[in-house]
Amino acid sequence: MTQMNWRIVLAARPKGLPTEADFRLEEVPIVQPGEGEILVRTRYLSVDPYMRGRMNEGASYAPGVGLGEVMVGGAVGDVVASRHAGFAEGDVAQVHSGWQDYGLASGDGARKVDPDLAPISTSLGVLGMPGITAWVGLLEIGHPQAGETVVVSGAAGAVGSLVGQIARIKGCRVVGVAGSDVKVSHVTDELGFAAAFNYKTTLDYGAALGELCPDGVDVYFDNVGGTISDAVLQHMNVGGRISVCGQISQYNLRTPEMGPRLTWLFITRRLQMRGFLVFDFEKLYAKALQEMSAWVQDGRLSYREDIVAGLEQTPAAFIGMLTGDNIGKRLVQVA
Amino acid sequence: MTQMNWRIVLAARPKGLPTEADFRLEEVPIVQPGEGEILVRTRYLSVDPYMRGRMNEGASYAPGVGLGEVMVGGAVGDVVASRHAGFAEGDVAQVHSGWQDYGLASGDGARKVDPDLAPISTSLGVLGMPGITAWVGLLEIGHPQAGETVVVSGAAGAVGSLVGQIARIKGCRVVGVAGSDVKVSHVTDELGFAAAFNYKTTLDYGAALGELCPDGVDVYFDNVGGTISDAVLQHMNVGGRISVCGQISQYNLRTPEMGPRLTWLFITRRLQMRGFLVFDFEKLYAKALQEMSAWVQDGRLSYREDIVAGLEQTPAAFIGMLTGDNIGKRLVQVA
Repeated sequence: MTQMNWRIVLAARPKGLPTEADFRLEEVPIVQPGEGEILVRTRYLSVDPYMRGRMNEGASYAPGVGLGEVMVGGAVGDVVASRHAGFAEGDVAQVHSGWQDYGLASGDGARKVDPDLAPISTSLGVLGMPGITAWVGLLEIGHPQAGETVVVSGAAGAVGSLVGQIARIKGCRVVGVAGSDVKVSHVTDELGFAAAFNYKTTLDYGAALGELCPDGVDVYFDNVGGTISDAVLQHMNVGGRISVCGQISQYNLRTPEMGPRLTWLFITRRLQMRGFLVFDFEKLYAKALQEMSAWVQDGRLSYREDIVAGLEQTPAAFIGMLTGDNIGKRLVQVA
Repeated sequence: MTQMNWRIVLAARPKGLPTEADFRLEEVPIVQPGEGEILVRTRYLSVDPYMRGRMNEGASYAPGVGLGEVMVGGAVGDVVASRHAGFAEGDVAQVHSGWQDYGLASGDGARKVDPDLAPISTSLGVLGMPGITAWVGLLEIGHPQAGETVVVSGAAGAVGSLVGQIARIKGCRVVGVAGSDVKVSHVTDELGFAAAFNYKTTLDYGAALGELCPDGVDVYFDNVGGTISDAVLQHMNVGGRISVCGQISQYNLRTPEMGPRLTWLFITRRLQMRGFLVFDFEKLYAKALQEMSAWVQDGRLSYREDIVAGLEQTPAAFIGMLTGDNIGKRLVQVA
């Protein structure tokens, strides 16, 4: 009897915010691994903002997902068959097999996860790509110095919640921008942010920043873009650094939004802005994971997972995350 | 008999583009130098885009000029009295004495100019602040590599015309954006730019850039901002660098212009943008001047001066420069 695999494919290219009709759940036979490959039964899969870009026609920094192809993304699970010397049946592997129950992956591209060190779900969050993204984007791009003020947008999200804590560990005063009062309380009460404001209920972002950042802003870690960034930019100090990680406010727009031109501030304040993709910093992954693990173990870095159960719930979990209904790292528990 | 000094003071704060009514020519007694000061009779004075910012109320990166105060700016002329050990009567000094016939300056802040090495007017241009600005902004911020494509806006201006030539000397392919066909011919025929286009007569900047920069843009040196920058940004290559020197298209606007939000390109293309003020790079002035002088002497770097005669013509010369009626460095010959 052929074993079957459930997977979610891209059914249509979204116009604006994706809907569940843009995805299709289908059943296909499991393919056994070829030479150098492993077959992994997914326990958790990751939904991340970048996946919205992959749903578009044409390449952005990576090729888009083709219609009828399985949605891309990170996953972690049990190796059920291996033709790679580095993995044996029963190992836990973090792979990039996408939204499916059973995924094939190159063993060379897979990461072995030790389930005794930390819950395996963390390999998709604090001790995985989002964690490394926060570490690289803050430390390598933002260069925060002790005593400086760091503002983080998307503060309660998978990356933002870690950025703020790393900045706090580095001796900075951290101010968050988030989309609900619960998120604001979470980052201030539980994650050690000095302050935060709810951008959905705050009328004047500039006034809020003026009050919460009396010494101005030295580093802005931007996950969101749009009007929040306009306001933060106007509060940047001379020599400020802007690390652009995401622009989630813009991903579902069908044409670019218009905003005020503020580039002159880059001159008068001598600002630097740099966008990044974590993939360009592969040589730092080990160092980042080592530091993040140590901070988790000594209790200085906490993380929150927002777990939805069931592969068939993945589209809704993803769409909800794009609208900000998660706190911390959204994952889908599959097996 | 008291000797008199003619000077131009700020009479009113401009709304939008300055008019001649915003300035006033007045005659005041010459003040003799105090301890450590020199009195310089201006031969040439400089008009530069940054002066527009100084006409506004309040400080930008430097305090604004007060109403009734003499307009700021660089000048070069003859030392007619000195109470500073480094200067004697008859020396030529480059000072920051502004729009006037006789200016007092601190000797410590003055630069002695050797009239045998180069025409003294060059101390306000290619071998002065605009030259150092071009050198610093291109090399220290843009980091051009041989074989790369460099785009310069304001290509025929005091800074842009030098940026393009330095980039050419460094082995880059240089494409200019300028505001007249004469300027386009000047930079391509005389300055060695590979190509240029006239933004006032080109309908589709994106198409022009696509044609003139078939390998994309690696470095953008921005003097102008606005819609030109929108178009260049969309042609930047992965890893591109944007050096923001000026935003002359925006200086006379009463409220910020709206433009499309393109920050997401910073992520997908991993772009870096940095604004700068030349004053932050004082430790590189000597090196920059040495290299620029050598290039002028060996004929690889040419410069053009656009000289207007008469102190009383300074407001018109300045206003005209803001609208782009100059080619090369605009100066006013005073004495």
